[in-house]
Amino acid sequence: MLLKKKGFKKVLPIALASTVIIGGALTTSSYQKVKADEVNKEQEIKNVIFLIGDGMGTSYTSAYRYLKDDPTTPVIELTEFDKYLVGQQMTYPDDPESTITDSAASATAMSSGIKTYNNAIAVNKEKENVKTVLEAAKEAGKSTGLVATSEITHATPAAFGAHNESRKNMDAIADDYYNLRINGNHSIDVLLGGGKSNFVRSDVNLAEAFKNDGYSYVTSKNELLNDENDKIVGLFADGGMPKMIDRTEVTPSLEEMTIAAIERLSKNDNGFFLMVEGSQIDWAGHANDVIGSMSEMEDFEKAFRAAIEFAKEDKHTLVVATADHSTGGFSIGADGSGIWDTNVIKAVKRTPAFIAEEIANGTDAETALLRYIDQDLMPLTAEEIDAIAAAGEKAADIETELKRLIDKRSYTGWTTGGHTGEDVPVYAFGPSSELFAGLLDNTDHANIIFDIIAGKSK
Amino acid sequence: MLLKKKGFKKVLPIALASTVIIGGALTTSSYQKVKADEVNKEQEIKNVIFLIGDGMGTSYTSAYRYLKDDPTTPVIELTEFDKYLVGQQMTYPDDPESTITDSAASATAMSSGIKTYNNAIAVNKEKENVKTVLEAAKEAGKSTGLVATSEITHATPAAFGAHNESRKNMDAIADDYYNLRINGNHSIDVLLGGGKSNFVRSDVNLAEAFKNDGYSYVTSKNELLNDENDKIVGLFADGGMPKMIDRTEVTPSLEEMTIAAIERLSKNDNGFFLMVEGSQIDWAGHANDVIGSMSEMEDFEKAFRAAIEFAKEDKHTLVVATADHSTGGFSIGADGSGIWDTNVIKAVKRTPAFIAEEIANGTDAETALLRYIDQDLMPLTAEEIDAIAAAGEKAADIETELKRLIDKRSYTGWTTGGHTGEDVPVYAFGPSSELFAGLLDNTDHANIIFDIIAGKSK
Repeated sequence: MLLKKKGFKKVLPIALASTVIIGGALTTSSYQKVKADEVNKEQEIKNVIFLIGDGMGTSYTSAYRYLKDDPTTPVIELTEFDKYLVGQQMTYPDDPESTITDSAASATAMSSGIKTYNNAIAVNKEKENVKTVLEAAKEAGKSTGLVATSEITHATPAAFGAHNESRKNMDAIADDYYNLRINGNHSIDVLLGGGKSNFVRSDVNLAEAFKNDGYSYVTSKNELLNDENDKIVGLFADGGMPKMIDRTEVTPSLEEMTIAAIERLSKNDNGFFLMVEGSQIDWAGHANDVIGSMSEMEDFEKAFRAAIEFAKEDKHTLVVATADHSTGGFSIGADGSGIWDTNVIKAVKRTPAFIAEEIANGTDAETALLRYIDQDLMPLTAEEIDAIAAAGEKAADIETELKRLIDKRSYTGWTTGGHTGEDVPVYAFGPSSELFAGLLDNTDHANIIFDIIAGKSK
Repeated sequence: MLLKKKGFKKVLPIALASTVIIGGALTTSSYQKVKADEVNKEQEIKNVIFLIGDGMGTSYTSAYRYLKDDPTTPVIELTEFDKYLVGQQMTYPDDPESTITDSAASATAMSSGIKTYNNAIAVNKEKENVKTVLEAAKEAGKSTGLVATSEITHATPAAFGAHNESRKNMDAIADDYYNLRINGNHSIDVLLGGGKSNFVRSDVNLAEAFKNDGYSYVTSKNELLNDENDKIVGLFADGGMPKMIDRTEVTPSLEEMTIAAIERLSKNDNGFFLMVEGSQIDWAGHANDVIGSMSEMEDFEKAFRAAIEFAKEDKHTLVVATADHSTGGFSIGADGSGIWDTNVIKAVKRTPAFIAEEIANGTDAETALLRYIDQDLMPLTAEEIDAIAAAGEKAADIETELKRLIDKRSYTGWTTGGHTGEDVPVYAFGPSSELFAGLLDNTDHANIIFDIIAGKSK
């Protein structure tokens, strides 16, 4: 187990340790919470781990807390994120056609410190390349890595490691990952995620090219966990990786990829920059799929916890987690309800897309539903089962009907298949984490990290 | 003008003063923003002004910023709230039937430091009275006040100044406001808002009773502005007050009521506690009325600014602003849009309810629409006007159709007529404002303020 190799010691979560009695009731009081950054004041920063929960607006982080609550205690337990909330950030792009950002413009803001148009991958409005914090880190002699559950060439990681006028050019972005050099070296040491088809192509095999340059190339969890090379390309799906709740043993979790990246990058005495994306919180949001979105929140929380645990041991690591925007107009409560029923979310053991696919492939609807939906938590009526069976033969139609049922039973609301413009939460731990407090603009992240890499902060 | 009487000096907003050039573009950088509380460190707190934007989730505060943006500048200007963001709070109640709070349970949490059931007015789950911060302030010799645009007996103010097993008992809540005594004195010195019908009743006239005890009783803006008495009851509507955008000259703004309250309360050398509620952000949210919600955001922002300006001059005042929950599942963007069109919001000069009422009362639909909707900002098609004209004769039906049009044109989304469960923003300024940083539970507000009143903080 990789956790043991590097001595990722389990640390007692600070906020849970400060559970206190107030007003006669057991209360988890963040009022009395130890300030996270007090532990590490005055420490030099060597490493920056920047985590992006794509689409992870406040509704998602709050919903995930309620989902994970232990109902046998009188309080709502805090998530790993909750302990490190320092503020919010504004996400708007600089785009004449859009007032709501996409992942490319917001990732470019966070990677490069500039506002740009939607679809832009680390280029400004004039389509000129702009320097990213990953490139600045490499110039400063640090190791660098990108980890995601989407294609590793998708908008968010791309904006840290490539330059392109459009996020759609994922082959060209993969080319950049291979071709861009800093002081004669590859600019990225660790690439872990999906997107094999953008690397292993009819015109070129970038995986082979990386191997020829001394990188490992792995395509399964087992290969990843048994690899010892500091430089690695791991591509675990042709496109995006399966969501956590749908994964089999061959697919690593975001946590496992994050730990694999940190193990490698942390061998550099000059430190490292690592970007980790929980990519598919957003994808589930676009699909208005609450099961998938909570699956991906859990995947992302575990990766965040791994980063925090490393930082607590290391003491020279800044960890920042935030979102690029929110997605779907997701709401906790809908249709006049006074409740959001987490039992329904807990009951469903695969994404609606997965279950629908199985039904479309010939499994009887009732069989599939009873296989994947816990009847103690969410007993289905005959009418509900019939409605799914009658949804048609296409997986997409079955999925839509199943999501409608889950939303209705759980009181989950959605307003759009696109993004929404509200501010998103910012979490930070470690030296200089106080610089991320209050209301930030998304560009502030890059500007603060550029200063840290240049030695201007701490 | 009251602003002059007490010397409410206009202070240059801190964050706007720190506009800096970064990466070649003009950026309002909160990264370089002066920390609000640094100004007032080590100051003794005499006064606490606690402001609640009812229903004011992050979507509302973010939307209001985009609405108020000056399109002639390359940046989005910060709102008054933005400069003082310190974190977020959790809003959940302790109610076996509801996982999403109502205003009564959340106001009780913030006033008394306990979690309770929905509908509870400063009583615990056993329906026993619990002490409020307003009562603690009065016990400590401070002056006290409640200001709201709802009935002043509505759930939020009630939970600070009364005790009842149900928010619905607004007459009994008015009785409490009159009957509750602390050290032989009335517990509340200033009551300003709506709800005349709960005070001037067939069974009793509490306005007369207050007058007999030395209070002024006023019912119009003019009377309020010309009154000089330290103790005052001002009731400016039978029920809730008109929304800002619909008001006439007889109705004071929330800002004017807030200033009137501060002027009176601040004469006490022992200091004061004042709760100010922007009540109808929530009401507009329940009605899925984006025009009304933004109207009430502006009313609330101006009251908040007045509180901040007093606190900056006074230097012994803690100002906290937050929400009790969010409402309506309001989203910035809908139906797959990449935009939220603020021109549509700016175009509409009265609430849909106001315009619909006028049409229901006999005004031709086209006449009313062209009177109240700026045709440069939101040109209406013949089909759109026809749809309103064809909506029926009932004001409610016309209003629904008009809101549908505004939502469609502006890309505004809603998921519910009820509340939603996501965390809400917390803003703080002045001595001890750092205690409100990070993630709070709603009960933390009361517990911090109890400590401040008891002299345990600063």
